[in-house]
Amino acid sequence: MADNKKMVNAITSMDEDFAQWYTDIVKKAELIEYTSVKGCMVIRPYAYAIWENIQRILDGMFKATGHENVCMPMFIPESLLQKEKDHVEGFAPEVAWVTHGGSEKLEDRLCVRPTSETLFCEHYANIVHSYRDLPKLYNQWVSVVRWEKTTRPFLRSREFLWQEGHTIHATAEEAIEETEKMLGVYAEFCEKYLAMPVVKGRKTDSDKFAGAEATYAIEALMHDGKALQAGTSHYFGDGFARAFDIQYTNKENKLTYPHQTSWGVTTRLIGAIIMTHGDNDGLVLPPAVAPIQVVILPIAQHKEGVLEKCAELKARLEKDFRVKLDDSDNSAGWKFSEYEMKGVPVRVELGPKDIEAGQCVIVTRHNREKTVVSLDELETMVAKKLEEVNEGLFNKALENREKKTYSCITTDEIIKALEENGDGFIKAMWCGDEECEDKVKELTGVGSRCIPFEQDNISDKCVCCGKPAKCMVYWGKAY
Amino acid sequence: MADNKKMVNAITSMDEDFAQWYTDIVKKAELIEYTSVKGCMVIRPYAYAIWENIQRILDGMFKATGHENVCMPMFIPESLLQKEKDHVEGFAPEVAWVTHGGSEKLEDRLCVRPTSETLFCEHYANIVHSYRDLPKLYNQWVSVVRWEKTTRPFLRSREFLWQEGHTIHATAEEAIEETEKMLGVYAEFCEKYLAMPVVKGRKTDSDKFAGAEATYAIEALMHDGKALQAGTSHYFGDGFARAFDIQYTNKENKLTYPHQTSWGVTTRLIGAIIMTHGDNDGLVLPPAVAPIQVVILPIAQHKEGVLEKCAELKARLEKDFRVKLDDSDNSAGWKFSEYEMKGVPVRVELGPKDIEAGQCVIVTRHNREKTVVSLDELETMVAKKLEEVNEGLFNKALENREKKTYSCITTDEIIKALEENGDGFIKAMWCGDEECEDKVKELTGVGSRCIPFEQDNISDKCVCCGKPAKCMVYWGKAY
Repeated sequence: MADNKKMVNAITSMDEDFAQWYTDIVKKAELIEYTSVKGCMVIRPYAYAIWENIQRILDGMFKATGHENVCMPMFIPESLLQKEKDHVEGFAPEVAWVTHGGSEKLEDRLCVRPTSETLFCEHYANIVHSYRDLPKLYNQWVSVVRWEKTTRPFLRSREFLWQEGHTIHATAEEAIEETEKMLGVYAEFCEKYLAMPVVKGRKTDSDKFAGAEATYAIEALMHDGKALQAGTSHYFGDGFARAFDIQYTNKENKLTYPHQTSWGVTTRLIGAIIMTHGDNDGLVLPPAVAPIQVVILPIAQHKEGVLEKCAELKARLEKDFRVKLDDSDNSAGWKFSEYEMKGVPVRVELGPKDIEAGQCVIVTRHNREKTVVSLDELETMVAKKLEEVNEGLFNKALENREKKTYSCITTDEIIKALEENGDGFIKAMWCGDEECEDKVKELTGVGSRCIPFEQDNISDKCVCCGKPAKCMVYWGKAY
Repeated sequence: MADNKKMVNAITSMDEDFAQWYTDIVKKAELIEYTSVKGCMVIRPYAYAIWENIQRILDGMFKATGHENVCMPMFIPESLLQKEKDHVEGFAPEVAWVTHGGSEKLEDRLCVRPTSETLFCEHYANIVHSYRDLPKLYNQWVSVVRWEKTTRPFLRSREFLWQEGHTIHATAEEAIEETEKMLGVYAEFCEKYLAMPVVKGRKTDSDKFAGAEATYAIEALMHDGKALQAGTSHYFGDGFARAFDIQYTNKENKLTYPHQTSWGVTTRLIGAIIMTHGDNDGLVLPPAVAPIQVVILPIAQHKEGVLEKCAELKARLEKDFRVKLDDSDNSAGWKFSEYEMKGVPVRVELGPKDIEAGQCVIVTRHNREKTVVSLDELETMVAKKLEEVNEGLFNKALENREKKTYSCITTDEIIKALEENGDGFIKAMWCGDEECEDKVKELTGVGSRCIPFEQDNISDKCVCCGKPAKCMVYWGKAY
């Protein structure tokens, strides 16, 4: 290993400086390149291929649950944005304003969508008239703009890619069911395909989406003990419908306000993958979204028959997997480091001696385990190894989260837990009062992440005021 | 048929008013809905599903030719846009300007990308250093904004969806080869998957892309005899490289300017599909991009066993095709009209008598041909019918184009041909002089569409000035 290290520019150690480690990976694994547009980045082919895999899987899950894709304009007239009071208050301070088209000044300024509730509402008002028109289960894959002051690749940028689901239903019950169902889809996606354990829960009122009655979220714990909100699902009640005058005739022939939801995940998930699975040699990718699942590296590739045999293995493997054969003239050591940096889950090594013995060596990226495999069993063993990687990544992440989750009865205990163990999830009871929520943050530095669906009764009393507790809350420092 | 007509709102006849016919279809087939953002539209699920099919097929063709997807920011700083002189002159008058982020006024205005050459150039300058870094074969699927004065759904809107390929090569030869290759990909896509014959050719200098050395295009003839530019591919030489200071060290260790291309198709293709294949009953979709390829309509669905048998056929067909079974309580007549309006290529009818006879009726949308098919042969026959539809659509479109293409020796002949036959392609010789090009337009109303790769020597003299001709040009009125 020591030799390989010299051949690529080493990255900062994650224990030394986690933030710099992250930035190094983002550049060295060729995920992001900066531009002269402040806070906006180029998503390079390797990162975009991860996003395409995320899209393909999630889009399949959305369609399997009855959703259809649409595409709304990217602009929202200022007058339209202002129709729902809470919503405009939440978003107006951070939007980009288009004031001129060509040389002509616009009468009504347009903002570049920070989210599209207002556009969907305008559309629903046009197309929803009868109970027969409901529900509409829509989604779009687009980019949105929020004028953030400080930005970080994937985690917080002025423009980011996402999907936004927007649905409208006859009844509150149906809309609530949808809100919860889509949170479940997100959780399943993260755990099954990104090998990233998440906590499902409800946001406190102070953390709700602007205009929502309730916001649900999945929260993940990164390697450094900071929390990351990985997806959200909002229930709007009939608030937007009233603001935008969307009404339908129900079965009893009565005009009724429908109920709405919205839900989204973003390219932030790529940041979550990096910080959940990455290590000091670079990226570690979950197989389901890895652009290259298997890299074949020839050993002593100048020797007769090696490249031919490698090409043969590639042809066999690419029927079932995303495969790359690197037959470039870079050294084997450079290649080892390069594909470790890129986080390719499985490496297949093949040299003259292996060919003679009818075998190859399979190395799994996350634990560097080497297995000698008979070439007859190649496909089966690669499939098995990819499953092992996925399981291994999930278990490692779950272990990290469990190790870094602390139950606390008092704010003093919170402070002590963080001091002794570093950042992590704090499980502590809450009376439901916003004042206590703020005070916990002020005293300990951790904010409420969510009220988890799976409650633990740690104590009867609020961690802050000591009054009767209403629920257990996950607290943490957030990305 | 007369009965069905009454059950849906009839659309304007295409012979009576083609423009209104187009607008009617766009609304009645639920492709587009207008918004309060002038010139921007909602692409509704049915149209977006067509676009997804276009994307999937084209993206596969791009990847098979070695291209990778990336994503650039949607904003371009004014200073960056200004770096290439011709480019900024061409685009600055029609861009949307962002002047404020939140409440803060921006120092350097940002335009919403009308096209992304400048961003790709900035990126290349960062990542291309050596001949080893070349070529880069990039593409992105995004939306762009051009502040058009008059807009029409799909054909011309202020925001539209597209893909833009951007490539950079070591030599001019490689870049020219790429430009031509991608035009070939577009032509193959249109002819094979959209059943739309196209003419491949080069644009005259007055019609080139702003900043290009040469622009190639595919031109299609719509049902009404007007031409539609369906895709373009540009060769830039090293002009952008010089403007953006992109240089690489070649194999002889010498600093060299690379050569570039870009190429794109847009949601305009959906407009082309409508105007190439549509008829007075609505949309007619080529099977490769139809969201629903087969609709199953139960006859007398209240009769015992009909819905069950239809569901069984659906289960069989959806293994190979995109299938919908409409078991709603709308009348059979309404359903016939609805799926004709939506342009579903193949309809399968099944009633109690069919079940008894072990058969069903297959109706092809484009020619209304009915075929009684044994249920044993269902899959084979549906596949065969879909192929027949595709072939039938292509031949019909080709016939329309041939019928409406006129060879002319003089401008008087052009005027006469258009008067007698209506709009169409004019094939006529040209001396290569821009003055003649302008004069032809002034005198006859038709502009140059392209200099086709396949030349016909109609005469030795320019159709306008009578001087020696350099080439044959397709002329026409354009969307």
